[in-house]
Amino acid sequence: MQALTIVPSVADSARLADVPEPPIADGPILARMLALGVCGTDRELVSGRYGVAPESQDALVIGHESLARVIEAPDGCGFSSGDHVVGIVRRPDPVPCASCAAGEWDMCRNGLYTERGIKGRHGFAAERIRLEPEFAVRVDPQLGLTAVLVEPASVIAKAWEQIERIGSRAAAWAPQKVLVTGAGPIGLLAAMMSVQRGLETHVFDRTSDGLKPRLVDDLGARYHTGELSSLADLKPDVVIECTGASAVVLEAIELTGPLGITCLAGVSSGGHALNLDVGLLNRTMVLENDVVFGTVNANRRHYENAAASLARADATWRSRLITRRVPLWQWRDALRREPGDVKVVIDFENR
Amino acid sequence: MQALTIVPSVADSARLADVPEPPIADGPILARMLALGVCGTDRELVSGRYGVAPESQDALVIGHESLARVIEAPDGCGFSSGDHVVGIVRRPDPVPCASCAAGEWDMCRNGLYTERGIKGRHGFAAERIRLEPEFAVRVDPQLGLTAVLVEPASVIAKAWEQIERIGSRAAAWAPQKVLVTGAGPIGLLAAMMSVQRGLETHVFDRTSDGLKPRLVDDLGARYHTGELSSLADLKPDVVIECTGASAVVLEAIELTGPLGITCLAGVSSGGHALNLDVGLLNRTMVLENDVVFGTVNANRRHYENAAASLARADATWRSRLITRRVPLWQWRDALRREPGDVKVVIDFENR
Repeated sequence: MQALTIVPSVADSARLADVPEPPIADGPILARMLALGVCGTDRELVSGRYGVAPESQDALVIGHESLARVIEAPDGCGFSSGDHVVGIVRRPDPVPCASCAAGEWDMCRNGLYTERGIKGRHGFAAERIRLEPEFAVRVDPQLGLTAVLVEPASVIAKAWEQIERIGSRAAAWAPQKVLVTGAGPIGLLAAMMSVQRGLETHVFDRTSDGLKPRLVDDLGARYHTGELSSLADLKPDVVIECTGASAVVLEAIELTGPLGITCLAGVSSGGHALNLDVGLLNRTMVLENDVVFGTVNANRRHYENAAASLARADATWRSRLITRRVPLWQWRDALRREPGDVKVVIDFENR
Repeated sequence: MQALTIVPSVADSARLADVPEPPIADGPILARMLALGVCGTDRELVSGRYGVAPESQDALVIGHESLARVIEAPDGCGFSSGDHVVGIVRRPDPVPCASCAAGEWDMCRNGLYTERGIKGRHGFAAERIRLEPEFAVRVDPQLGLTAVLVEPASVIAKAWEQIERIGSRAAAWAPQKVLVTGAGPIGLLAAMMSVQRGLETHVFDRTSDGLKPRLVDDLGARYHTGELSSLADLKPDVVIECTGASAVVLEAIELTGPLGITCLAGVSSGGHALNLDVGLLNRTMVLENDVVFGTVNANRRHYENAAASLARADATWRSRLITRRVPLWQWRDALRREPGDVKVVIDFENR
């Protein structure tokens, strides 16, 4: 079958390769890929800055935002032929840390996890994949192609769970205003979940026209562009930072009001030094009881919450998040950023 | 009676003044001050950088770390003549925010609180004070003079409560190693509470000799000095940052392991810019699910927890934290930092 592979740490080694059928070791559920979402991590993998091949192999099949249809599944495993499934990305080490043993592999403490398509396990950019039942999530076929958004939405479902758990440190925590920085897929999904919670939702992005402002408006949220500092009076209770851009990260932290929670959900690349008054930032955080936290990955319940959240969203709205559908053989186009992109998917049914 | 007053925002306006007896409006409990702890906030107040006088008054009686003996208290108020009491510093606004209404005035959302000796209310640097029963905490007389440490310890009792509440966001959170930066009174009390929790406790301070290393050793914790970066392999689960020094704050955040929690408990003055790779810091926080939070002040249960924690500590150890006792008329000596100081108190019984 065909799969999109890289040689980790080798820049531009990505190619569409003939690879063996997925091994039974990957799990008893065999599924045909329907769609694969592409994200910044995939571009990092292709650039050679990230990624680990499975043990004693040179190449890694990439891809971690999946939607597949079950071809065969053992009786009693909870899945049947025809089910639409999304694969969970992270797997605990065979000797799990306490977090992984508790099912919270997203909070892994020893770093020995593997991740499909990223770290030590082949991913989902292949015509057929295999999954273990415990790492497969059945999704409503009515979600259609938008079920490919379950994985990125799971990261934000986790972020929201963390925000709420951390917020509960104060007896009377009752957030009203949320600011999301960045209107890419993660930012838009964060805003969607904010609106679903009944919160006044603001989204900031540097793009001033095109689809993003309309998607935000249609969600019932407010779109802002220009200078982030112009939102100084907003005093959001929660900021969800989805750009990873250093200057935005810092301004976001300073924007919150007392008891502010800033959730860092964007992975930055590092190497951008800024001149910063750490003393003032520290003072503000202390006197306002502010929290800043980072969040990554998701566990099973976050995938389930993400699927439920997407199902509650307007069907047209969520389908507009997928701005390009590219056949597998045109994978290079899928990896290239184009103006107006929100989520680009490789469409395995379009040949 | 005599009281130590400042004119807020006027540098070096501090003086020992004759002031009227405390007004009934301050509360029905009349008490004689036994001891007053002096801290960095008092020095900020005296320098003119901080502080608000009560409405329509020019001067502010400072002092917020109190220990007093009740002279008279109304029947049925829960306090009796002879009780040792500590005054709670912060008071909610008459129209309280949701946090203040829930008794968590330390998590005030609207900033309209007042603070005795700091913001809008006279403090405890006076021969006699009055307190409302709901803002007075009875302490065990066996604590002796060390009950004056209840207020600073309350700030750290709150910090520990916040650490544990935030930590519970992960199902399997079970901290083992704690690093405290700064071995002043707050740092030593943080280490005391860490050891009481059965945690492996490390304390870092720039002082290499004198009392602080011995106090840390005698607690059963490990003392470190020199370069903070030499602790890179320690990977503490929790860092309690008590210096407020910008460089230390940043290094502390970077030191934690996965799921790390950095508690900022030191108020810095600002104005010290550092060149910082925010991108790298952001990336580490995201990939490790790290939290950084600021904490200030304390509510009633934190004072009670602090008193209980001090009572559990070795009596000799806690008494060694008070390194100088100065009579009221020598208040200038109390405010001056001297080598070897840990906690300096004004001793009202020593005339």
